[in-house]
Amino acid sequence: MAKIRVIVNGAKGKMGIETVKAIMAEDDMELVASTDVGDDLSEKIINNKAEVVVDFTVPQAALGNAKKIISAEASAVIGTTGLSNENLKELGSLCAKHKVNCLVAPNFAVGAVLMMKFAAEAVKYLPHAEIIEFHHEKKLDKPSGTAIKTAHLMEKDVPIHSVRLPGLVAHQEVIFGGVGQTLTIRHDSINRESFMPGVILAIRKIKTLKGLVYGLEKIL
Amino acid sequence: MAKIRVIVNGAKGKMGIETVKAIMAEDDMELVASTDVGDDLSEKIINNKAEVVVDFTVPQAALGNAKKIISAEASAVIGTTGLSNENLKELGSLCAKHKVNCLVAPNFAVGAVLMMKFAAEAVKYLPHAEIIEFHHEKKLDKPSGTAIKTAHLMEKDVPIHSVRLPGLVAHQEVIFGGVGQTLTIRHDSINRESFMPGVILAIRKIKTLKGLVYGLEKIL
Amino acid sequence: MAKIRVIVNGAKGKMGIETVKAIMAEDDMELVASTDVGDDLSEKIINNKAEVVVDFTVPQAALGNAKKIISAEASAVIGTTGLSNENLKELGSLCAKHKVNCLVAPNFAVGAVLMMKFAAEAVKYLPHAEIIEFHHEKKLDKPSGTAIKTAHLMEKDVPIHSVRLPGLVAHQEVIFGGVGQTLTIRHDSINRESFMPGVILAIRKIKTLKGLVYGLEKIL
Amino acid sequence: MAKIRVIVNGAKGKMGIETVKAIMAEDDMELVASTDVGDDLSEKIINNKAEVVVDFTVPQAALGNAKKIISAEASAVIGTTGLSNENLKELGSLCAKHKVNCLVAPNFAVGAVLMMKFAAEAVKYLPHAEIIEFHHEKKLDKPSGTAIKTAHLMEKDVPIHSVRLPGLVAHQEVIFGGVGQTLTIRHDSINRESFMPGVILAIRKIKTLKGLVYGLEKIL
Repeated sequence: MAKIRVIVNGAKGKMGIETVKAIMAEDDMELVASTDVGDDLSEKIINNKAEVVVDFTVPQAALGNAKKIISAEASAVIGTTGLSNENLKELGSLCAKHKVNCLVAPNFAVGAVLMMKFAAEAVKYLPHAEIIEFHHEKKLDKPSGTAIKTAHLMEKDVPIHSVRLPGLVAHQEVIFGGVGQTLTIRHDSINRESFMPGVILAIRKIKTLKGLVYGLEKIL
Repeated sequence: MAKIRVIVNGAKGKMGIETVKAIMAEDDMELVASTDVGDDLSEKIINNKAEVVVDFTVPQAALGNAKKIISAEASAVIGTTGLSNENLKELGSLCAKHKVNCLVAPNFAVGAVLMMKFAAEAVKYLPHAEIIEFHHEKKLDKPSGTAIKTAHLMEKDVPIHSVRLPGLVAHQEVIFGGVGQTLTIRHDSINRESFMPGVILAIRKIKTLKGLVYGLEKIL
Repeated sequence: MAKIRVIVNGAKGKMGIETVKAIMAEDDMELVASTDVGDDLSEKIINNKAEVVVDFTVPQAALGNAKKIISAEASAVIGTTGLSNENLKELGSLCAKHKVNCLVAPNFAVGAVLMMKFAAEAVKYLPHAEIIEFHHEKKLDKPSGTAIKTAHLMEKDVPIHSVRLPGLVAHQEVIFGGVGQTLTIRHDSINRESFMPGVILAIRKIKTLKGLVYGLEKIL
Repeated sequence: MAKIRVIVNGAKGKMGIETVKAIMAEDDMELVASTDVGDDLSEKIINNKAEVVVDFTVPQAALGNAKKIISAEASAVIGTTGLSNENLKELGSLCAKHKVNCLVAPNFAVGAVLMMKFAAEAVKYLPHAEIIEFHHEKKLDKPSGTAIKTAHLMEKDVPIHSVRLPGLVAHQEVIFGGVGQTLTIRHDSINRESFMPGVILAIRKIKTLKGLVYGLEKIL
């Protein structure tokens, strides 16, 4: 079977470096180029006959990069945050025009995405819930983006507690309480590698999607 | 709207007592009779125009009770364990003949059932998993029935660890490990009341099922 | 060996009922009377040659009861809250005069007391800490008394998070963070019986104390 | 105040590299040399007027290194495992002769050492306990050395459960069960840096010890 031809854009960034390593460890995909700021992305896609481009760059470049990828008729896996609903709509139309797909995912950790998906489902049966998120003391913002997204998916006003301590990395617990019982869903992430299985899955599945898809949970 | 007419069979047992209390606390259902060993169940169903019968009795009586309920043209919610696959098949045919439904559920704790459902789903993306179940020191059998059922639903050979200590009631943790991350799903049960929301849900939904259904997870 | 002669005062209250049961299950102590509001406590102590009186009554009665017990020359185990520092001083003098002992303990759960003791010790080596306390949704006050006492013993301004959900009873976690590691001390209490081992220990050890002692941790 | 003059022996190993970094980040100590296999350790100690030598080498070199350090009249902090009780005795005599101290510690993670210390204390009041240790799937031996040491310090036959999954690093939970309650002490370690606060503490305190001391817990 032919290997999936992949480009990593933002290949020198922290996520890019991990993505390059992860792709090279897979048998069914081939890294045909790695690009960064200053490279002509469109040209690289066309010259290398890339089928999928993974983008881990910066918020302000996300939309421009996605447009270039789709216009060059490659499917896009966008891990960069910062796209508005309007941007997503625009990308959806562009996908239709060029007959490629685009997956935009703010979180590629399979475990975190499953946690959010299960939380959204559990809340229907056990409506009383609270979230505790635990991060290293250098994370100054609270609550975390994942906690906000989880509460949003649960479609409720869920209390969120933020613990900040050295020795922690990134952890979250969603606790549901019902009569005589509790259900707890917890995700612990200890490093950036935890995002790679999600990225690899996205590269593998993107051809089977239909146009623009938002959230890794849609392909699980 | 007319209330659902319910009979609790095994009303003097520990689960029966809780079920009677739980039904009486709901607005959309009415306890039309409560029965036990020695009562003529068929007669009670017919005389009281019962629509649903909840059975919490003993394994050896489960099949006989279920047949009486269905033959009297009431839908059956069977919480009693001990039914074989063959028994379930027989009940399925009987349901078709009498145009009623039957839900057989070995565990009515919504949280436990969600835990099992999520575990079965998570294992597809994070295939490395172990189960730890924690029970009071008087529970002599190990592993617990819920742990065995969870592993069975995960369709894998999952290592199970059994902790037995005073001060514990009934708890289970399913831990999934992936690169750089873990996902943990935990259920804590502190008393029999934890089963009631599941029983109430079953009473409410049984009319909408089709014939015989096995497992509370099917109606969540 | 002669059994310790014990009276339970407040024997009809929730804690009193458990204490009566617990004492009767021990071989080295004897329940010589159980008293309540309306009984002449001093007379009961003297007539029954009681050596130890356990008091679980109401805050406003705590000081009066303690004085009666000590003046009747029995040692006092006071589980009732509401004594001020001044009250404790007064009781200390009274103990000296009558040559008996008095243990005042706001929390008799051995596990909770150990948690507080360990937290106070751990904070010396791992100074970054946060407390999460989990209680049933009917507990309206937050943070819990145990959380406040724990933070006080740690002699720090420790952030406290309060989770309130059905299905919870009384639980607390103290998390310490250091470089690359965390230490967590957690206590889970599921019922009133959890206080009994502490009460029994107090009855057994009170003869060996010196005058007034505050806190179960002093006799562990 | 004069800085403590320190040598790291085994400075190119994983632990050695971290130790060198940790010492350089402290204001009250100075790294006067770093040595490895092939260096003349005795000469380096004497020439650099080292007061403390930290040894992280290999089991078969531990005794020889410790003897050289003590004979050169520096205090020794030995993190290398492999010393027998007889070896420790011999080092104790050598310390007395040369009027220096030696701390031998198989685990320098302050949190892990506190966990063991608290477990040894808690078991006196809550004698029913079990240990669960969680490690990455590449750790083939089970149970872990820390779990064995914890059980040994608890002076009991404690059941140990070993969980091995990707995404885990090194974690341990000691659960104590009593009537109606449980107490859990858990340590999570995510990297080698977690050992450094313990090493730094040892360097700082070793001058105040008396001869040979075994276990970081003795100086906490």
